[in-house]
Amino acid sequence: MDKYEKVIELAKRRGFLWNSFELYGGAAGFYDYGPLGSTLKRRIEQIWRDLYVIHEGFMEIETPTIGIEDVFVASGHVGGFSDPLCECKKCGEAFRADHLVDNIVEVADALSNTELDTIIKDNDIKCPECGGDLGDAYEFNLMFQTAIGPGGGRPGYMRPETAQGMFVNFQRLLKFYRDKLPFGVTQIGKSYRNEISPRQGVIRLREFTQAEAEIFIDPRDKTHPNIERFADTPLNLYSQEGQERGTVEQITIGDALKQGIIAHEFLAYHIALTNHFLQRVGISPEHLRFRQHKKDEMAHYAIDCWDAEIETDRFGWIEVVGIADRTDFDLNAHAKTSKTELSVYIEYDEPKMVTSFVVKPNMGKLGPIFKGKAKVIADALKAMTQEELEHDEIKVVMDGEEFVVPSDLVEFAEETVKVSGENIVPHVIEPSFGIDRILYCTMEHAFNEEMVKAQEGKDEENGNEPEEESRVVFKLKSEVAPVQVAVLPLITKSELITPAKDIVALIRNRGLLVSYDDSGTIGRRYRRNDEIGTPYSITIDYESLDDKSVTIRDRDSMSQVRAPIKDIENVIYSLVYEGKKFRTAGTLVQ
Amino acid sequence: MDKYEKVIELAKRRGFLWNSFELYGGAAGFYDYGPLGSTLKRRIEQIWRDLYVIHEGFMEIETPTIGIEDVFVASGHVGGFSDPLCECKKCGEAFRADHLVDNIVEVADALSNTELDTIIKDNDIKCPECGGDLGDAYEFNLMFQTAIGPGGGRPGYMRPETAQGMFVNFQRLLKFYRDKLPFGVTQIGKSYRNEISPRQGVIRLREFTQAEAEIFIDPRDKTHPNIERFADTPLNLYSQEGQERGTVEQITIGDALKQGIIAHEFLAYHIALTNHFLQRVGISPEHLRFRQHKKDEMAHYAIDCWDAEIETDRFGWIEVVGIADRTDFDLNAHAKTSKTELSVYIEYDEPKMVTSFVVKPNMGKLGPIFKGKAKVIADALKAMTQEELEHDEIKVVMDGEEFVVPSDLVEFAEETVKVSGENIVPHVIEPSFGIDRILYCTMEHAFNEEMVKAQEGKDEENGNEPEEESRVVFKLKSEVAPVQVAVLPLITKSELITPAKDIVALIRNRGLLVSYDDSGTIGRRYRRNDEIGTPYSITIDYESLDDKSVTIRDRDSMSQVRAPIKDIENVIYSLVYEGKKFRTAGTLVQ
Repeated sequence: MDKYEKVIELAKRRGFLWNSFELYGGAAGFYDYGPLGSTLKRRIEQIWRDLYVIHEGFMEIETPTIGIEDVFVASGHVGGFSDPLCECKKCGEAFRADHLVDNIVEVADALSNTELDTIIKDNDIKCPECGGDLGDAYEFNLMFQTAIGPGGGRPGYMRPETAQGMFVNFQRLLKFYRDKLPFGVTQIGKSYRNEISPRQGVIRLREFTQAEAEIFIDPRDKTHPNIERFADTPLNLYSQEGQERGTVEQITIGDALKQGIIAHEFLAYHIALTNHFLQRVGISPEHLRFRQHKKDEMAHYAIDCWDAEIETDRFGWIEVVGIADRTDFDLNAHAKTSKTELSVYIEYDEPKMVTSFVVKPNMGKLGPIFKGKAKVIADALKAMTQEELEHDEIKVVMDGEEFVVPSDLVEFAEETVKVSGENIVPHVIEPSFGIDRILYCTMEHAFNEEMVKAQEGKDEENGNEPEEESRVVFKLKSEVAPVQVAVLPLITKSELITPAKDIVALIRNRGLLVSYDDSGTIGRRYRRNDEIGTPYSITIDYESLDDKSVTIRDRDSMSQVRAPIKDIENVIYSLVYEGKKFRTAGTLVQ
Repeated sequence: MDKYEKVIELAKRRGFLWNSFELYGGAAGFYDYGPLGSTLKRRIEQIWRDLYVIHEGFMEIETPTIGIEDVFVASGHVGGFSDPLCECKKCGEAFRADHLVDNIVEVADALSNTELDTIIKDNDIKCPECGGDLGDAYEFNLMFQTAIGPGGGRPGYMRPETAQGMFVNFQRLLKFYRDKLPFGVTQIGKSYRNEISPRQGVIRLREFTQAEAEIFIDPRDKTHPNIERFADTPLNLYSQEGQERGTVEQITIGDALKQGIIAHEFLAYHIALTNHFLQRVGISPEHLRFRQHKKDEMAHYAIDCWDAEIETDRFGWIEVVGIADRTDFDLNAHAKTSKTELSVYIEYDEPKMVTSFVVKPNMGKLGPIFKGKAKVIADALKAMTQEELEHDEIKVVMDGEEFVVPSDLVEFAEETVKVSGENIVPHVIEPSFGIDRILYCTMEHAFNEEMVKAQEGKDEENGNEPEEESRVVFKLKSEVAPVQVAVLPLITKSELITPAKDIVALIRNRGLLVSYDDSGTIGRRYRRNDEIGTPYSITIDYESLDDKSVTIRDRDSMSQVRAPIKDIENVIYSLVYEGKKFRTAGTLVQ
């Protein structure tokens, strides 16, 4: 078993992840989050909200997962959100054409369908399922399509990203933020991608959760007011140059900016914030790097783009976050399709005097002469230059027809006016997180098998050297662990069960997720909780009835402290959320 | 403007609710939650989680919003989740046929399509849009359909409820809860309903959020261990009998159980818990009632079903929660379709001796005689009665063919065996919450227009009697208010801005959502915060620089206290979350 298999086996057995629709044979690309997985996911999202919504002040919005066609025409998804599909002529199985050749060429996903066909033919690639001949590659759109309303309705699509719901609300958001840049907005929710043939378990899902921020900034000022916060933060950067050399470099944000590796401060700040988030949820820094998009891989409109990549045992380095400067691309695209100006009026510090050439056709005189055409002729005149207008008879040509306008029907002059500001299309910085992949990596990095003294919790006073046994332990950060504390009466007798349940109630009222377990030996119960990552276990024994104290066990060190029942809920809360050191939670039990 | 219009106007203007896709002309049945609406929604969901997940211990799971066909064939949605649709022959507009006749008959939604056609014809009902003739009513399935995978793929549906994702995981969940009843599981997420013609704004959405719990209980024991908690809770019950009389009765849970109005304790407990939740998020109890489903409206399999209904200004009483005893219907439906046993093995307190008639065909002798048919003949023998078997030659008839089996090839006898338990299909108690409607009602019930002294916050020492002015105030419970505290420097000068921003940082670090506002008079800023329901505002004035204190203003009473800056974040936290009384937060400012 590789580590992926071990993690998934545990995840399925203990209620983190389940194959969806298993009762009916399942469906590739869909996973259920069981009780523990769903709770872990909520906690990861909560940390994201704490950083982005509470601390950065990027308010969260929630827009529908079903979208109408116009939105995705503008965004380019109707036209271009596709993968090359190749079907077996014999068995009909469908494959990603680029995946069929990715051990032959280096950047398979940059090839055209014709190039893919040629490589498949030249290398005599056959259907991996049945050996049959493969058909030509064609583009398969990855949006799930549906219809809104009866009678075929209007076309609807399951959104491929949460981002568009924020772009189309630009005007509303700008008003909410009182017409001032920069401002940010976030969304956490489901997105969909109708993968041709998903074969990587939880790494490639057809329905997944994104957490995205769209930050609208003044294109003329890409500094960040808090960049100092991260100036000395070291990151593993895998820059364009580094990729050519094949080396990842550890460098501080400040130095990366000085050396021009990262385009600007605003992007650098968000790379650093992503790094902070990933480490806070439990990604180990030595398996985390930031890879810059190469020039030929970056979208044509983007200024700079970095992916956070995490190293996994089976899949190698996988992309979990993208952080891009998307410029004004998205707003312009929606402005064009919706025929609406999407910009911000920015006042100058000082008004400017601007000289321009102004044409004023006399509508009162044009009207009687040109009747229905007067308006379009006037518009044509307004667009003419001084040279074209300086004639006694001005010639206007429209659709092949020529109109002659006497010069006394048009006034024109250079005018100087005071302009106090201008409309600017903001640029967008977009950090986009794949929550499901981050969750999986959190589990993989927390997964440990280790040798420990056997029979923990049992009486060891028989003098024998304790034997060793292996334990599986999910060393999840206590802030993300699904079950935050387990309460265990030492033996299943009512005189211990009753006070144990009272402690459960106390801790629940503090808003913590607590489990109660009285079945099996105490050692077995510790192991069960180790396996699901419960950071602390409280044991109630007969002594507790006298000294009104309990034992708290720390999952990672397996050491124990004795602490009073009174205030136990606040002690646990501080351990979980406030970084309280375990050794300060009570008197160390030797 | 009626109250709905007033609430929606405010909701749109201030960023609670927006029509989706407005930039492209919108689409009926879809709403966006803006920054404040989304935050309000998160807080309502958080309270639900606190009650159901943390306190009841019903762990949350997360299953896909796209489902495969088998699931919805089993659940009955493919066959029966539809509304009667009626199209205009002239303009093609589609209508709910039952809505067209609902001012003519009393229970329009109970009519068959033929009955609807007759009523439409007899009453000469025409198209409400163009006056044209209406076509016959037919059933329109309300699930959004899509296809999973390429080449037409397999049919997929956007789930119409979150419940099925929990039912199909029954076996996994049972194992998670160590094979013991009762246990509960919850899910909060999107559900979809492709409404024919949604015309009630946020009340009838095509994409909406549900919070559902499925609680699996032993059908032989529907008592609830904590029923005493709610025994004295008074509820407005609109029972089957009450509906006949047309009266809502205020009665305690305990009395409702004694009088047999509610079927059993377990259901009663969950009606009371629903009541507790709705009041905690801010629904006013005088506009809340529980309506029992009438016999002809209840699903045939249900034992008892109650809807929580909230009174609204425009729509009258609307259903926001359903609480039902669905018996073993859902598990049986999935067991049948998936051919899998979905039950719990329950051990008896004492093993029972059970006598049964057992037939043992001698396969070693049957085989050589009947060859390929030996197995089916043996099965047929096993199903026979003692009378049928007590012959020298036993006749077995299968598919018209007769087989004669000599009696010495079959042994049979009554046997008594010890049985220590049995398999039981649990019953399901399902509280199902419509979060969007609850959110709207929370806003409507919190919406207030009132007359207050004019010029609040201005210097009133000029001796004039203050005039009155009206203010709009969202009296949201502080636990659900999106912005929890506003920080306002009295005037926009850096010596006040700097300490104000320090306070913002302090409060953010306590995990609270704080806004900073320095534009306009202090009175206008108070009004702005009243309008979005911010429960507390902190004002920093010149005195603050000397006495290191600030003024906290209470939204509802508009009274103010003076409190030290040190510890201000904990004071606000206690006010918002821990029920601290405002008067105890500092020294009252007269």
